[in-house]
Amino acid sequence: MSAGSVVGAEPLGIIAGGGDLPLRVAEAAAAAGRPVHVVVLEGQGDPGAFSAFPHVVLRFGLAATMLRWLREAGARQIVLAGRVTRPSILSLRPDGAGMSLLSRIGRAAFRGDDSILSAVIRVLREDGFEVLGAQHVLEDLLPPPGLLAGEAPGEAAHADIARGVAVCRALGAVDVGQACVVQQGLVLAVEAIEGTDAMLARSAALRRDGPPGVLVKCVKPGQSRLADLPTIGPATVRGAAAAGLAGLAFEANGTIVMDRAGTLAAARAAGLFVLAFDAETVLKETET
Amino acid sequence: MSAGSVVGAEPLGIIAGGGDLPLRVAEAAAAAGRPVHVVVLEGQGDPGAFSAFPHVVLRFGLAATMLRWLREAGARQIVLAGRVTRPSILSLRPDGAGMSLLSRIGRAAFRGDDSILSAVIRVLREDGFEVLGAQHVLEDLLPPPGLLAGEAPGEAAHADIARGVAVCRALGAVDVGQACVVQQGLVLAVEAIEGTDAMLARSAALRRDGPPGVLVKCVKPGQSRLADLPTIGPATVRGAAAAGLAGLAFEANGTIVMDRAGTLAAARAAGLFVLAFDAETVLKETET
Repeated sequence: MSAGSVVGAEPLGIIAGGGDLPLRVAEAAAAAGRPVHVVVLEGQGDPGAFSAFPHVVLRFGLAATMLRWLREAGARQIVLAGRVTRPSILSLRPDGAGMSLLSRIGRAAFRGDDSILSAVIRVLREDGFEVLGAQHVLEDLLPPPGLLAGEAPGEAAHADIARGVAVCRALGAVDVGQACVVQQGLVLAVEAIEGTDAMLARSAALRRDGPPGVLVKCVKPGQSRLADLPTIGPATVRGAAAAGLAGLAFEANGTIVMDRAGTLAAARAAGLFVLAFDAETVLKETET
Repeated sequence: MSAGSVVGAEPLGIIAGGGDLPLRVAEAAAAAGRPVHVVVLEGQGDPGAFSAFPHVVLRFGLAATMLRWLREAGARQIVLAGRVTRPSILSLRPDGAGMSLLSRIGRAAFRGDDSILSAVIRVLREDGFEVLGAQHVLEDLLPPPGLLAGEAPGEAAHADIARGVAVCRALGAVDVGQACVVQQGLVLAVEAIEGTDAMLARSAALRRDGPPGVLVKCVKPGQSRLADLPTIGPATVRGAAAAGLAGLAFEANGTIVMDRAGTLAAARAAGLFVLAFDAETVLKETET
C-alpha cells in the first residue's frame, strides 16, 4: 500500500511515541489531504511537535479516553508510530475504562514488547479501528534488499552478519531486542531495552583489533509489521562509526530508515556500508 | 567427584585465566598433596598470584608450547579455570605448532565461546590429557537447588526468574551470554561479552518503579561443565544491590559461587535473595 491509497478526506488518528516518525506520518497524511488527530503519549512523544494538529496528551492508563477522542474525531484508521518505553506497572494508574482495556490486553502486558503491541492491535481492531503501519502513509520507509551505501561487505563482515541474524532471531523469538553487534564472530553486545544507540556506545569499549564488526538489526520472528519496527537513522550511523564498525546491516522490508538521504550521506562520509538483507537468504547461506 | 578423588601425588596442570578461581584451585590441589603446574594466559591471568607454584606465562598462540610444558611436568590432568576474553584474530600470532593446533580447533574458533571451549577440550583429550572442572578440585563450588540467602522470591520475582531462564536459554542456544536482568517481565539487559558486572551497572539506569527485578544466570544448553561456568561472587551481589534488584537467581549444579560465605553475607546485608534453581523445574512451571 502506498500513500496514494490513503489519500482522501478521511481523518487519520496517530498515537505518537518518541522520535521523528510520528510527525513525519502526520505531515505526510496532512499533505495527502487528510485531517490528522494526534494522541501524544505522555512522557514519550513531544506535544510541541504537533502544535499544527489537533492533539491531546494522555498517559497509557487513559487508553479508553484516547480511543473515545479519536472516535469522536471521526478517525477510523490509526497509526501507532514512534518509540515507546513500556510504562512501569505503578505509572499506569488506569481509570475504570482503562482498567477494562488493560484486562483485555491481559497477561501480554507482562510479557515482551511485541506481545503487548499485538494485544493492543487486537483490542483496537475489536473496537472497530483499522491499524495502519507508518509505511502505509510514508512511501519508501522500508528499503527492499540491496546495498544502499558503501562497498559490499567482504567475507568477514558477511560472516558477522550471518551470526548477527541468528542471534537476533533467537532473541526475537523470546521477544527481547532487535539488534546486536558482532565482530570476528564474537557477539560484542546484544540489545535489550536500552536501545541501539546505547548498545553502540558500549560496543566501542568492547571492540578488538583486526577486522571491524557489524551492527545487525532484525524484525522479531512473528512480529507485527504495524508498529515498533527496527529503525535506523543518521544517529545510528554516527554511533556505528564511533564504535569502529564496518557497517550496518538490517532486515529488508521491515526496518525503518529515517531521513534516508541523511543516513546514507553520513554512512558514505564515514566509510560504512549500509545493507538491507533478506533474512531467509542470509540464514540459508549460513547453513551450507 | 570430590576433592578426595584427586588427592595424591599426581601433578595437576592449571591453565589460568582471570579472577580468583585458578588460584583457589591451585591452593586446594596443593593442600591435597598434588604438585601444581600453572600456565598463566598472557593478558588474562595474574602471574604474581602464582609465585608459590611453578608457572609460565604464555599467549594463546603458543598453545602447543603450553601443552608440551605441562606434559614435561608430568601433568596428565588439566583444569581450565578463570575468566578468559577471547583473543582477537590479530593477537593470536600462533607459532607453527600453534597454527596446527588452531587448525584442529578449526571453525569453532570463529563461533561462540562455548564452541571454542568444546573444541579446545576435544583437542586436549586427543592429545592424551584429562580435563577436569574446577568443581572436581574444589568442593561445594556449585550449589545444588535451594534458597541460600534472603526470603524466598514472591510471585513477581518468580515470574521474572522464569522469563529470565527462557531468555538465557535462547541466548545460550546461539552461544552468547549467560545472564540477563528482568523486571516486571521486561528484559532490562542481556549479557554479551561485557560481563555480568557491566550489565548490572547499566541496569541501574534502566530500572523502573514498582516491584524490583532479578538477575538470572544460566548454563548454556549443551555447555560443557568443565570450563567457563557462570559465576557469582560478592561483587555480583554489590552490583545487583546497586541496580535495585530483589535478588540473584542462578542455575543449580552449574553456577560457581566464589567466596560463598562472603557472597551470602553481602546478600543478607543488602536484603537480597540468592536462589539456586533447577532450570527444568522453572521452565516446566512456566508452561502451566
